[in-house]
Amino acid sequence: MTHSTPLDDLGQCLMDRLDEAASYSLPGPGVTRLFAGEEHRKLLPLVSSWMRLAGLEPELDAVGNLVGRCPRALAGEPALILGSHQDSVVEGGKYDGMLGVVMPLLALQALREQGREPSCAVEIVAFGDEEGVRFPSTLVGSRALAGTLDPKVLEGEDKEGITLREALERLGADPSRLAETARDPARVLGYIEVHIEQGPVLENEGLALGVVTALTGIERHRVKVSGKAGHAGTTPMAGRRDALVGASAMVLEADSLLRHLDGLVGVIGQLCVRPGAVNVIPSEVEFTLEVRSPDTDKRLAGRREILAALSGIAKERGLEISTRVDYQAEGVPCAEWMIEALEQSCKDEGQATRRLFSGAGHDGLAMHDLTDIGMLFLRCRGGLSHHPDEAIAAKDAEAGVRVIMRLLTKMGDMSRPLSVWEKKA
Amino acid sequence: MTHSTPLDDLGQCLMDRLDEAASYSLPGPGVTRLFAGEEHRKLLPLVSSWMRLAGLEPELDAVGNLVGRCPRALAGEPALILGSHQDSVVEGGKYDGMLGVVMPLLALQALREQGREPSCAVEIVAFGDEEGVRFPSTLVGSRALAGTLDPKVLEGEDKEGITLREALERLGADPSRLAETARDPARVLGYIEVHIEQGPVLENEGLALGVVTALTGIERHRVKVSGKAGHAGTTPMAGRRDALVGASAMVLEADSLLRHLDGLVGVIGQLCVRPGAVNVIPSEVEFTLEVRSPDTDKRLAGRREILAALSGIAKERGLEISTRVDYQAEGVPCAEWMIEALEQSCKDEGQATRRLFSGAGHDGLAMHDLTDIGMLFLRCRGGLSHHPDEAIAAKDAEAGVRVIMRLLTKMGDMSRPLSVWEKKA
Repeated sequence: MTHSTPLDDLGQCLMDRLDEAASYSLPGPGVTRLFAGEEHRKLLPLVSSWMRLAGLEPELDAVGNLVGRCPRALAGEPALILGSHQDSVVEGGKYDGMLGVVMPLLALQALREQGREPSCAVEIVAFGDEEGVRFPSTLVGSRALAGTLDPKVLEGEDKEGITLREALERLGADPSRLAETARDPARVLGYIEVHIEQGPVLENEGLALGVVTALTGIERHRVKVSGKAGHAGTTPMAGRRDALVGASAMVLEADSLLRHLDGLVGVIGQLCVRPGAVNVIPSEVEFTLEVRSPDTDKRLAGRREILAALSGIAKERGLEISTRVDYQAEGVPCAEWMIEALEQSCKDEGQATRRLFSGAGHDGLAMHDLTDIGMLFLRCRGGLSHHPDEAIAAKDAEAGVRVIMRLLTKMGDMSRPLSVWEKKA
Repeated sequence: MTHSTPLDDLGQCLMDRLDEAASYSLPGPGVTRLFAGEEHRKLLPLVSSWMRLAGLEPELDAVGNLVGRCPRALAGEPALILGSHQDSVVEGGKYDGMLGVVMPLLALQALREQGREPSCAVEIVAFGDEEGVRFPSTLVGSRALAGTLDPKVLEGEDKEGITLREALERLGADPSRLAETARDPARVLGYIEVHIEQGPVLENEGLALGVVTALTGIERHRVKVSGKAGHAGTTPMAGRRDALVGASAMVLEADSLLRHLDGLVGVIGQLCVRPGAVNVIPSEVEFTLEVRSPDTDKRLAGRREILAALSGIAKERGLEISTRVDYQAEGVPCAEWMIEALEQSCKDEGQATRRLFSGAGHDGLAMHDLTDIGMLFLRCRGGLSHHPDEAIAAKDAEAGVRVIMRLLTKMGDMSRPLSVWEKKA
């Protein structure tokens, strides 16, 4: 594939670049590009070439982020960081992640070819890892920038026993320089990410773009239900303590509470039955419970109600239950000045928008520890994501590029006090 | 261990032999002795020695059954076959299977040492495979005797890719002689198996022994429920088609029907969720449904009702469902003359009994194609089976040995017309 599409068709150019990036994938349906894998390594020269076309100087940092800096950023001016991640889930789509890398690069290149300049120093970062598929860690790239990455994650291993440290070295990065990756907050103006919505809200309302107000908080529990195994032919039905029957009642109850409690979503995504023989009464079931809400109080209240209901079911059915929190991430708000800047840029481009929260986690969760964050969502077809059929429209893509161009030329205004661009520190 | 217990303590001698046999096991809890494995091969000399003590001539047949024949059987007289299986489930107990091998051997030896003889020719068979754990086939040993074994099962492979044919050769058997294993029905008087109950009925009623009326029919279904995957954070709860939530409703409904329909037991023992990620709405669940009844009409009616209910749940919830019968075995009745012979032998030994059906399958399911069958159940602790804690009492074991001794000396009477021993052909 070559960059044959003229820049005057920004939407098509964006789509072509995303198609080209998607070809850097393991075989199989959709896109599979894991952190610090071969496909990641092979993709770097392509993204570097796009950075140079945008007037940025690319550099691979210690944890495999490809960082493109404009001359003003290289000279030490505080910079606005835009970006998203290069990695994908297994058999994912073309847009989750790469859209937020390619779109600001194209916006910057288009400005440049029009002889215009962004009004502040700019960095565009293609993070190495956001999905957390290959190694036990997640958000490695953005945490490294925020200075919150525990160096121990470098020793985490993938399924083949390769440590993250080894994988980064094979990628061409130098993980021994991790400490240098953390940014000085005084040198960062903010972080903006463009991402597909991964949900149906924008599509349902006929909007190409939406402005994110907050990133959801997430908690994940591991629930173990224990009953008593027995021969399924010789143990009378009455008096059985079947762990799967109990767990099934729990799945239904959790789902029902999640539907009825305000401001929560959640899922039971993994469930494993032991001993798992066709003719043995299940003695143990282990399942995951994930609960999300942008509102921490609602999430914690919902968790309490769900876990209490599960314990009640266990008691009723003579089963043991134990639960443990496996993962917990607070929700984070987008900065009001960022929200307003994005809204104003959309308005200036004639794009109607709405505010919405992100039910998914993003690099912004980690970048929030470093700086103010803002997110722009792009409509995706059927709300589908993490799937080979993930799709966006070229027209929406073009609208997105133009909004980012508008934003980049206006960002300097935030130094003006009392304007809508004012950074409310 | 040595055979130090004197034969005048039959119960203790039986327990000692079962302990000794149990030591032929893979490492880990309980007994793991798989068909045609190393432990099976090593056990053969021990069982052969017990056969010789009982006056039988041991021979390993084409499919790994160890067959002990008395001189009259060797001379061609029609014989009563007694036996059970040598193989176990993974981490099973000491009694399931081996009890029915060791008990008639000890009964025969005890008779012999008292200078008495059974009233008919006798064979005792230690079947190689009843549990069907290692290879895709099951009841290989008894099917070979009945002449119903499909030779293709010899090509079935275990997890390591070893075929049954290869495993039998390593065991020392000659699978090329499979055809010779099938018995002439005219040379067989009947088949009697002693087995632990594997259920709580005898224990609940304070009985050491029970006489089996029928072996349960079994059917196994594979049910696939399909919904729609989606990102669990960004897909609103309303409108989800979560395959696990639907499958959970199905598990509860099937369990409830199995509890309320007369004469059925059943279980959902395996359940697998796809894609099985903590943050993805389950798109597909596959589970097994096993239904058992000694009464074929009740089983078929129950199946219809359960499958219709599952389809109704799928429809309500916007899910696809497909079901397929994976396995089906008709229940078989024990012969009334066999039941009466066992009851009379118990009575003669002063043992109260009851009739009950077997919720488990046994070698009798296959032997029924060859000859009349009868089964004696022995009480087991807590109804527990297929578990390292499987247990029986030495006192019950002794009662069992004495009943079988009584039976063996009376079996000749069945040639007398109109007696309770009469074979109702």
